[in-house]
Amino acid sequence: MHKPRELTVALGDRSYPIIIGNKLLNGGFELSKYVVGPDCLVVSNDTVAPIYLDALLRLLVGRNARSVVLQDGERYKTLASVAEVIDGLVAAGASRDVTVIALGGGVVGDIAGFAAACYMRGVPFIQIPTTLLAQVDSSVGGKTGVNHEGGKNLIGAFHQPQLVLIDTDTLMTLPAREFSAGLAEVIKHAAIFDAGFFAWLESNIGALLRRDSDLLAEAICRSCEIKAAVVAEDEKEHGRRALLNFGHTFGHAIENCLGYGEWLHGEAVAAGMIMAAELSGLASEDRDRIRKLIAASGLPVEPPPIGAKRLGAAMQLDKKVQQKKLRFVLLKSLGEAFVTSDYDESKLQAVLKRAGG
Amino acid sequence: MHKPRELTVALGDRSYPIIIGNKLLNGGFELSKYVVGPDCLVVSNDTVAPIYLDALLRLLVGRNARSVVLQDGERYKTLASVAEVIDGLVAAGASRDVTVIALGGGVVGDIAGFAAACYMRGVPFIQIPTTLLAQVDSSVGGKTGVNHEGGKNLIGAFHQPQLVLIDTDTLMTLPAREFSAGLAEVIKHAAIFDAGFFAWLESNIGALLRRDSDLLAEAICRSCEIKAAVVAEDEKEHGRRALLNFGHTFGHAIENCLGYGEWLHGEAVAAGMIMAAELSGLASEDRDRIRKLIAASGLPVEPPPIGAKRLGAAMQLDKKVQQKKLRFVLLKSLGEAFVTSDYDESKLQAVLKRAGG
Repeated sequence: MHKPRELTVALGDRSYPIIIGNKLLNGGFELSKYVVGPDCLVVSNDTVAPIYLDALLRLLVGRNARSVVLQDGERYKTLASVAEVIDGLVAAGASRDVTVIALGGGVVGDIAGFAAACYMRGVPFIQIPTTLLAQVDSSVGGKTGVNHEGGKNLIGAFHQPQLVLIDTDTLMTLPAREFSAGLAEVIKHAAIFDAGFFAWLESNIGALLRRDSDLLAEAICRSCEIKAAVVAEDEKEHGRRALLNFGHTFGHAIENCLGYGEWLHGEAVAAGMIMAAELSGLASEDRDRIRKLIAASGLPVEPPPIGAKRLGAAMQLDKKVQQKKLRFVLLKSLGEAFVTSDYDESKLQAVLKRAGG
Repeated sequence: MHKPRELTVALGDRSYPIIIGNKLLNGGFELSKYVVGPDCLVVSNDTVAPIYLDALLRLLVGRNARSVVLQDGERYKTLASVAEVIDGLVAAGASRDVTVIALGGGVVGDIAGFAAACYMRGVPFIQIPTTLLAQVDSSVGGKTGVNHEGGKNLIGAFHQPQLVLIDTDTLMTLPAREFSAGLAEVIKHAAIFDAGFFAWLESNIGALLRRDSDLLAEAICRSCEIKAAVVAEDEKEHGRRALLNFGHTFGHAIENCLGYGEWLHGEAVAAGMIMAAELSGLASEDRDRIRKLIAASGLPVEPPPIGAKRLGAAMQLDKKVQQKKLRFVLLKSLGEAFVTSDYDESKLQAVLKRAGG
């Protein structure tokens, strides 16, 4: 067991720690000191629960702990699943000091977090993300919510957790494709904020893909530090937080056209980052570095052949459309991003052509 | 037209005005300056919309205004109705600067406000309450939400409006029973915070029941001032805001036993206030004054005959139960309330007996 890394998301009286290490679920972490009341409800899914739920419940000894196990998959990220969690809280007779604990990937965290935000207008919440994507991205920052037929994450709330607990051992059972999808967000954090971290990833991508536990903790920690710093500056996404959407305007449109779940979110973002880098007019050397690191991570470097027109139309639906004008996160250079609505329309059309005519 | 009264709910960067007057919906108010973006969605119900929706839409001329008309009634205060409003927002292609406008009673305001809180994690929201209850109570303070089979308001959010617009003319079409139910909350505000206002109500109850428009504006304004002051001190109900629950522990239990909608909320609170006053050990003279004012307002002074045992059990379900100990808002004297879990159990049993053995 390595010594766990710890960092803080600084949000005044809503500040919370992120703790990253190995062997934490396996008895190495005193979770119950973060559970304020006597009751807790663990929310998980039918893929993760069989592997980790018992271990987690052992960490909650002495508490009145129940669980709700949802079906696994983005297509269950709906208001109906939120209602299922709330039914579980009501059935437990839970009061305002119940702690909701999310054990799973981003979908579980988003559903459980939104249920915690809504139940009695807000109860305490702990994130235990078990996928790389959730560990480096969705579990940090307090965004919770579910999808609507009309778009992703259209229904939700900002609700900060009390604690994010990241056990890198959970990554050992993660399928390779999902692991790579998580790397896409790590690469994103480096590309928009930290050229040094980007170079570190280039050097260590092989060992990361072999899931070296100490290097993983390092990559996750640096990724969370970047995200935590952005969130601390702009909790409700009025400004700087939008930079985290690098690759996402294209990525969401790809997911939208394919139907959610066909490509993983990180895969769509990976192809989206390459498109955004091209739209940025970045030096070709830097574009190559991004493309190479994404390819080395086992991620797609081209969008699926859905056609430029369809992809463009899907982008118009994106919720970041303000007064009908598209906004993009572009790169000034590797490690430095900015938001703009002032892009070259002909260059955009050229980029969209990557998805076919 | 009297000059409108205006007051502010002081919540820092979430502060907002409450404007109270007559002939406001009828062209007397410049609503569109409170609508930030080009789009708005009016949420109303099938009782209120036929009377006031056209007038409201005329105030929104030049905006892209749509409406969703829900079925009238507390039984529609569900997650399904929230989904209906969100469907309306999605169908309108609404972006983050859409304004949701609630036109109706507390149920409409709670549903529309919660939909506004959740849509894209929060969009602007305006309250135009058309019942006395909503005008003096539910439209002020940012509590939004819906019921669950397991209890009232179990699912919700704090989401402050941009504006509360109160047109006393809307009370002229309000059924007498609902008007009286609204008076219950006015009496509550006086009983817990302002003995002078209580005396004013005793003097003016006749004219208020005749719906004198200037006296109504005065009573609504004073009621909103009291509520606004409490909310400004304790937005998220960690302390002092709980005082507004005077009569509500008993009242909610009455509603719960009868099934929601059998008694109006204000009626249950009226009987609940008399029970709470008795549990308080208040001087019999003050108890008589409360009882008389409630009776003069056309409100019930006794709980329905549901039985002491059933009523007691229903109270245990109330969400204000903390660690299984009941908490009550009691009166030290008329105009001064406090919260306590330290009550006389035998006196409570005697009070519950009012509901039958």
